[in-house]
Amino acid sequence: MKPVKRPAVVLLSGGLDSATVLAIARGQQFTTLALSVNYGQRHRAELDAAQRVATALGAHEHRIMSVDLAGIGGSALTDERLAVPESPSSGIPITYVPARNTLLLALALGWAEAAGAVDIFVGVNAIDYSGYPDCRPQFIAAFESLAQLATKAGAEGTRYKIHAPLIHLSKAEIIRTGSELGVDYAMTVSCYQASAEGLACGRCDSCRLRALGFAEAGIPDPTRYA
Amino acid sequence: MKPVKRPAVVLLSGGLDSATVLAIARGQQFTTLALSVNYGQRHRAELDAAQRVATALGAHEHRIMSVDLAGIGGSALTDERLAVPESPSSGIPITYVPARNTLLLALALGWAEAAGAVDIFVGVNAIDYSGYPDCRPQFIAAFESLAQLATKAGAEGTRYKIHAPLIHLSKAEIIRTGSELGVDYAMTVSCYQASAEGLACGRCDSCRLRALGFAEAGIPDPTRYA
Repeated sequence: MKPVKRPAVVLLSGGLDSATVLAIARGQQFTTLALSVNYGQRHRAELDAAQRVATALGAHEHRIMSVDLAGIGGSALTDERLAVPESPSSGIPITYVPARNTLLLALALGWAEAAGAVDIFVGVNAIDYSGYPDCRPQFIAAFESLAQLATKAGAEGTRYKIHAPLIHLSKAEIIRTGSELGVDYAMTVSCYQASAEGLACGRCDSCRLRALGFAEAGIPDPTRYA
Repeated sequence: MKPVKRPAVVLLSGGLDSATVLAIARGQQFTTLALSVNYGQRHRAELDAAQRVATALGAHEHRIMSVDLAGIGGSALTDERLAVPESPSSGIPITYVPARNTLLLALALGWAEAAGAVDIFVGVNAIDYSGYPDCRPQFIAAFESLAQLATKAGAEGTRYKIHAPLIHLSKAEIIRTGSELGVDYAMTVSCYQASAEGLACGRCDSCRLRALGFAEAGIPDPTRYA
């Protein structure tokens, strides 16, 4: 492990994946700038979790940016009129938020450029990814190209790097990786309809994938269920 | 002119360029969804202008989304500690906002996808562009590619189109185009440090370019100066 000490912006939702990514970035000796985004998701408990995780994993700084999408709707995660599904569906699920990762990465890029960071970490995953289009490797590659053209730093020659270290890992592999790096997954909230206290429903897609991951990894599931 | 009647999201700042773009989109028979974004810019008068312009030019809908960048700073347009320059500078100016157009287009893309629109209009300009990297044609092309990969609709085969009809026009050509389409530029605010009432300073880069544009177009300048 080489002794870098460069700043990196790490997108931190408060869920299992992004907590693992923060631990990975720290393990690679980056000074981590953790970024959480409140875009009106129902599971606000995630933001509280993000705060706990940022502190526990020694993020250098943690910021929460808010985006008011002015009710554009179209997702069960932001639109209260749509129910979160509790059984697996085929195709891209209704919990998909339009252009979410594009928005999250745009905010991360803005902070990165202002802070002089060229590294951005994001916990997207192309395997247990629930079918979201903006979790695919080609999306990440396209955003990296865009970042080069979008920024003053890029125009001046800086090469931005979007790190997606989980992209080819299974949920079980993610959990094993994070456990080795000391992540306390009891702090994280993955549930799409967590209670205000962060208790998981145990029934939504996200809970299902998470529980299966712990089972496959052979690691006791610390999730606090309702 | 073919009789389309498709929805299109139009980014509308309230300035001269985006007002012209809204008129162009309307002229092309799109049902226009005008989107203004409050990202903490100093010139809030622009948002009031956007509201007036949306109404005057018959936008089907006008929404204002808010983004709290949590003080990432780095730009004279959002950071009150930095002065807006009043003389031309070389290189990319301090009024550049990190990753701004990436963020604006991400929000537009989200609304477009939720509304079933595949057309997005943006008033970037590569000639009188003040040196911003995210106003170049290659940036627009890169975002169009990204949109394809970023969205559920794109993954299902929809071809997004980012229209940048001003990109190769001079300020004078933009003003002539808009004037022919009936844009009342007295409603628009371009000044980087406009007063709360929307009065222009007449001294910043943006005011300078605008005044020159009217002079070159041979059209009386209706700007309300302080």
